Amino acid sequence: MRIAGIDPGYHRCGWAVLEIANGGGMLHGSGTIVAEAGQEMAQRLHLIAEGIDQLISLWQPDVMAVEELFFVKNVKTGIGVAQARGVVLQRAAAAGIRVHEYPPSMIKSQLTGSGNADKKQVEYMVRRLFDLPEDNQLDDELDAIAVAVCQAMRSGIPEQLR
Amino acid sequence: MRIAGIDPGYHRCGWAVLEIANGGGMLHGSGTIVAEAGQEMAQRLHLIAEGIDQLISLWQPDVMAVEELFFVKNVKTGIGVAQARGVVLQRAAAAGIRVHEYPPSMIKSQLTGSGNADKKQVEYMVRRLFDLPEDNQLDDELDAIAVAVCQAMRSGIPEQLR
Repeated sequence: MRIAGIDPGYHRCGWAVLEIANGGGMLHGSGTIVAEAGQEMAQRLHLIAEGIDQLISLWQPDVMAVEELFFVKNVKTGIGVAQARGVVLQRAAAAGIRVHEYPPSMIKSQLTGSGNADKKQVEYMVRRLFDLPEDNQLDDELDAIAVAVCQAMRSGIPEQLR
Repeated sequence: MRIAGIDPGYHRCGWAVLEIANGGGMLHGSGTIVAEAGQEMAQRLHLIAEGIDQLISLWQPDVMAVEELFFVKNVKTGIGVAQARGVVLQRAAAAGIRVHEYPPSMIKSQLTGSGNADKKQVEYMVRRLFDLPEDNQLDDELDAIAVAVCQAMRSGIPEQLR
């Protein structure tokens, strides 16, 4: 099973593709789709959509996992993130890919054993699971890997990720 | 110039197509795209996207006008509306259609002369402008007409809508 994990954003949108086979997990790739500021919101959302379309076309994921958005600290930023999130969900549905949404507490719990873990603990676990270098990933990319791992674990696999 | 006005929503998404020519305005059509509850959010957003794509394909609008989302009373509903709004903006950008966003106060001001007008006043003006029946439109449809009229007026046209 191939899982795409997405951390939606209208500036940086993190992505990860995780392959689960024979009880093991392999990170095929991860990165960040960037929609630079200085463009109109509709244009930035379209750049995110094009990135998601390319990811789907290239990696052909079986499912997509996206973190749930519950509350927002800053309303303006929250509205922007929700708009990007809507675009991500729609592009998945357009490609016939099932979307699973997970609350932040469940992602933290699956990765660290505690739903109240802080961001650094989650990042530490993500880096350790895939032997990632210390300085090579943006937050959004690590968050996208984390939600993909959460999806893998919720699916009852794999041993190596436990 | 042909203007599409959209009132985004993940349950009901209002739409209106207004034609501006020879200093006059004509309402070509208006309605509501409905994405019934009981489906997953990604699927509902995709139904909205398909409706917007069909509207664009059928009416070929030159511009799209959408109300700005500033704050939300209910966070869960607000996140849902913002997600639908993101989808609407992206589908416009995908079709190469310029999007204009207007704050609610400007739409009210253009329709009624007061940025603090209540919803009923705006609806009254929309019905009067286009001689609409009293009981034939949903709120979302009337709001979509209102934002299209705002776009027409901000473009400096037309006499009949003043």
